[in-house]
Amino acid sequence: MKHILIIGIGTGNPEHLTIQAINAMNAADVIFLPVKGAGKEELAEVRREICERYVTRPGIRITEFQVPQRQTAERTYTQSVDAWHGEIAHIYGELISSLPDDGSGAFLVWGDPSLYDSTIRIIERVQREGSLDFDCRVIPGITSIQVLAASHKIPVNLVGKPIEITTGRRLARDGLLTDSTIVMLDGEQAFAKIDDPDAEIFWGAYLGTKDEIVRSGRLGDIAADILTLRAEARQRHGWIMDIYLLRKGRDFEG
Amino acid sequence: MKHILIIGIGTGNPEHLTIQAINAMNAADVIFLPVKGAGKEELAEVRREICERYVTRPGIRITEFQVPQRQTAERTYTQSVDAWHGEIAHIYGELISSLPDDGSGAFLVWGDPSLYDSTIRIIERVQREGSLDFDCRVIPGITSIQVLAASHKIPVNLVGKPIEITTGRRLARDGLLTDSTIVMLDGEQAFAKIDDPDAEIFWGAYLGTKDEIVRSGRLGDIAADILTLRAEARQRHGWIMDIYLLRKGRDFEG
Repeated sequence: MKHILIIGIGTGNPEHLTIQAINAMNAADVIFLPVKGAGKEELAEVRREICERYVTRPGIRITEFQVPQRQTAERTYTQSVDAWHGEIAHIYGELISSLPDDGSGAFLVWGDPSLYDSTIRIIERVQREGSLDFDCRVIPGITSIQVLAASHKIPVNLVGKPIEITTGRRLARDGLLTDSTIVMLDGEQAFAKIDDPDAEIFWGAYLGTKDEIVRSGRLGDIAADILTLRAEARQRHGWIMDIYLLRKGRDFEG
Repeated sequence: MKHILIIGIGTGNPEHLTIQAINAMNAADVIFLPVKGAGKEELAEVRREICERYVTRPGIRITEFQVPQRQTAERTYTQSVDAWHGEIAHIYGELISSLPDDGSGAFLVWGDPSLYDSTIRIIERVQREGSLDFDCRVIPGITSIQVLAASHKIPVNLVGKPIEITTGRRLARDGLLTDSTIVMLDGEQAFAKIDDPDAEIFWGAYLGTKDEIVRSGRLGDIAADILTLRAEARQRHGWIMDIYLLRKGRDFEG
């Protein structure tokens, strides 16, 4: 039987690595590094740096692989994601096949494998659909939500109150439903479209990296500034990853 | 000016520590260790073990302090938390005062400082109310939510769908509102009270420690088993910390 490790590596600061993640990397025979998407080169560079810094056991092989682009033409969102996962599952299957008998392969996942990442889901698909015999272990990692909160020095929740984690698309459609709403994967800057000027926004981009930018304030006062700042940063880098918390109300109110 | 570090240490597995957390601990002059609440001795033991294992710079002092109990008699929940934070702020103020000029003190926080923990909020209160001159840095840590997902080898969210993080009290009152609902701080086992037998539950207790227990299945099938298991474990240990994810629906549905 072969062994797969799905390892969360945090959001770009190599010091986000846990001791558990470092030990897991050093237990692998092969580390699989994806080359893909936004900030392709910069993110691949961070992954390589993490390997150089923490892989100490001799003989561990690093294998880079290309991740296909998601095809959106003439498909619903669900269909496009499903088909894309199918393609990636095929690639993962080949990578796992290439492992020696009883060997271990590690996938390094940006942030945490459980949060808006599909590595676990795709590995499960390989297990379900294929004839490969392997087991799997998941190692948690620091997420951008935690780095956002740490950089702003704030708790995410109000005392005893719930948190919603959602997408830009849903925020644009439904507005602010909860006291504390974290928005990830927002390609449309939904914060600037909702009618809630008194909400506070805590925004961050490139969190954990040397290029980190954070801003906070009353949404009505700073939404336009964040839009400008975001557009400039995106142009300068060629890509952006950002996330924000919207908060209504205060602790010990109501 | 003095310096305060608020450091997330994960959920009981010393390997949850990040390199950033270890470096921050070693940058402190004094590490403050709380002795408090459920599993007082066992949790204090984990914190001591973390210090023994990772503090390598000579001369760092470890100071333990007692955390007062929250008084609930004749108070609303909000009043009781507010008054309790006031008492703790007083203790934090004394600890910070005791630091040498320009010295650094570190608070070790279970899980992540941003999630259902009040250290950041109380330190801010000390800053607001007192006359102490200090700055503050927050270091993220692995949360029980991430360990729950890693142990069950599942993503927390369905593809493109939101997540709610809430309390047992709110679940009991409002029922299941979202596809993926994480319930923390549930003293009343609200999962067994809601009328949603087809939801899936992913439950875990003592996550990350050597005593970790996890169970998953259809809520209607296993809620009673979890209640029994939880009661037995709680009796055996004298305390319990547990958390769960409730999920409705599947990926690529609807």
